[in-house]
Amino acid sequence: MEFTLLKEDSSSKARLGKLKTAHSEFETPIFMPVGTRAAVKTLTSKQLHALEAQIILGNTYHLMLKPGAEIIEKAGGLHKFMNWDKSILTDSGGFQVFSLSSLNRVTDQGVHFQSHIDGSSHFLGPRESMAIQKSLGSDIVMAFDECPPYPCSRIQLEESLVRTEKWARVCRDYTLHPNQNLFGIVQGGIEADLRRESAKSLVSMDFDGYAIGGVSVGEPEELMYQAVEASIPFLPKEKPRYLMGVGTPKNMIEAVMRGIDLFDCVMPTRNARNGMAFTWDGKVQIKAARYKEDFSPLDPHLDNEVSSYSKAYIRHLLNVDEITGLTLVTMQNLSFYLDLMKKIRQAIENNTIDELYKKIVSLYPN
Amino acid sequence: MEFTLLKEDSSSKARLGKLKTAHSEFETPIFMPVGTRAAVKTLTSKQLHALEAQIILGNTYHLMLKPGAEIIEKAGGLHKFMNWDKSILTDSGGFQVFSLSSLNRVTDQGVHFQSHIDGSSHFLGPRESMAIQKSLGSDIVMAFDECPPYPCSRIQLEESLVRTEKWARVCRDYTLHPNQNLFGIVQGGIEADLRRESAKSLVSMDFDGYAIGGVSVGEPEELMYQAVEASIPFLPKEKPRYLMGVGTPKNMIEAVMRGIDLFDCVMPTRNARNGMAFTWDGKVQIKAARYKEDFSPLDPHLDNEVSSYSKAYIRHLLNVDEITGLTLVTMQNLSFYLDLMKKIRQAIENNTIDELYKKIVSLYPN
Repeated sequence: MEFTLLKEDSSSKARLGKLKTAHSEFETPIFMPVGTRAAVKTLTSKQLHALEAQIILGNTYHLMLKPGAEIIEKAGGLHKFMNWDKSILTDSGGFQVFSLSSLNRVTDQGVHFQSHIDGSSHFLGPRESMAIQKSLGSDIVMAFDECPPYPCSRIQLEESLVRTEKWARVCRDYTLHPNQNLFGIVQGGIEADLRRESAKSLVSMDFDGYAIGGVSVGEPEELMYQAVEASIPFLPKEKPRYLMGVGTPKNMIEAVMRGIDLFDCVMPTRNARNGMAFTWDGKVQIKAARYKEDFSPLDPHLDNEVSSYSKAYIRHLLNVDEITGLTLVTMQNLSFYLDLMKKIRQAIENNTIDELYKKIVSLYPN
Repeated sequence: MEFTLLKEDSSSKARLGKLKTAHSEFETPIFMPVGTRAAVKTLTSKQLHALEAQIILGNTYHLMLKPGAEIIEKAGGLHKFMNWDKSILTDSGGFQVFSLSSLNRVTDQGVHFQSHIDGSSHFLGPRESMAIQKSLGSDIVMAFDECPPYPCSRIQLEESLVRTEKWARVCRDYTLHPNQNLFGIVQGGIEADLRRESAKSLVSMDFDGYAIGGVSVGEPEELMYQAVEASIPFLPKEKPRYLMGVGTPKNMIEAVMRGIDLFDCVMPTRNARNGMAFTWDGKVQIKAARYKEDFSPLDPHLDNEVSSYSKAYIRHLLNVDEITGLTLVTMQNLSFYLDLMKKIRQAIENNTIDELYKKIVSLYPN
């Protein structure tokens, strides 16, 4: 992997970069559509290509349970299995074993848990997570971390951080495929000093990139920005930075202006399936009666496949539970998120990020 | 509409034809994917284009209830509403008011019924059906008919036929758009003399094409073929013939060999959503454990978008309820049905229909 810093914004900490993996080369800041179970929900890989997605995310926790890492390895890795030839980042499973599964026991070696699907028993620790992500063959591998809830006591945060740092070292010492890259994950909750300590400790281990984790777990927006601010100064400029699971359009530009390069979030795909469309005219609740006879496209400012359809048509599809409707709104939302990132990159290039910030916040105040 | 008979098979009644509507020109026999509620389930119109579909079917009954014909008319017709620029055939709603709705009362003017969606009251007769299909702007409009159940007494069949013929005349006398074409529907159940009478009576009214209706309603396969055989000799060679709602691969080639040109059926799309794939190796129940590590494509004999994915992957998607899996199997099944028709056309061209018949029956005995 090569990461090149192309430009730093003068009025904020925003950065324009270029990331090159074994599978694709793209500029940052960028958004990664979420393909939890080896598919970005409702879309084929051809449709993802048409949206010009460059890197997507897969979830270790879900994939280890179904279909199982060994099957994906036999298929020749996740890229081949899901027919996606651009980049893939896989998370470590850490977040999900703490949030989705029935926890049995956390030890220094990892987590005993029961599958949320069928209650079967599994164990996932740093070695297991690395072995699985090696089987998946992702371009960017995430270190196995403990993700504390919010709120969380100082004592718990400290204990958790010790474990996360220990696990990070195990991950770093694990031999992945030569083309794979490993990111460390900064934890520390909302405690600035713990974030700093975590960042410093990880940087001393020398990862290929750094993520800020343990955010987007229910904390107020401001505390999330503070966690980013507390971590960023201690991360090396020449490595990419990824804010995990964030967020709204406003969250993302706020984070970009604090120095973040990579994002993922289920919001565009999940909200699509509830009939909420992100557009350059703001949110559109497409099932609303007001769109019954609105024959204009969902987003007149975007020239994508969805532009060929009217709001009235998409509303009809969702109201009669036609799957095609979910596909079209998903395409719109990812198209918007990817375009938002493109506009952010252009704004960094043109020194107009403040202007874009105002526009985004006026369209998406929350 | 222009229909040109290109070739008649020497060993059967199969015909090779060319049909030209205001929206597309294609060879027959052909299969029409079903787009009941203004979408072929799970697919976008771009995907339908990629499958090389030439004509699809829309359902008057469903569309009159949701979103309502007036909205589609305001959108500029069904083609524009659903972003489909090739041909569309709409059924008359007759079949559905008799099979789906709660019937209130059948009069000589039409049918009072209650919506299967919300119980609301509606009336549909020949004039109403023509008015709706005129609003939809379909290329091929079907006459409003009564579709008797199977089994059905002789007396009931006769009474029903009187009504269907009366309604056919009302439809024929209705002024559609100049580019629209009207097909009459032969009824008569499994009574050969009633089929003959119905065919003769409709032909005397001079429609643009003729359908055989009241089949695929639960009758044994052989009786369906007999109904076709009883009708075909009385239909003019120079007009297209459409067998409604049929069927399996075997049903279709049997019907082609009896002189049918057009088909529609929900089987390829509906079975896809249950995990059943039609392939040139026979049926594939893709959820089966045997495909867990089968990394070959669903159908190695077809070169379509689905060929880029493995059975193991598609199995995984269906097993974890990923919508993308439904989309891929739907694409496969329509690709197979359209290819089956292409092979039938080639076989008529090359005088090899008997050979193809044997192959299809060996793959799809039922």
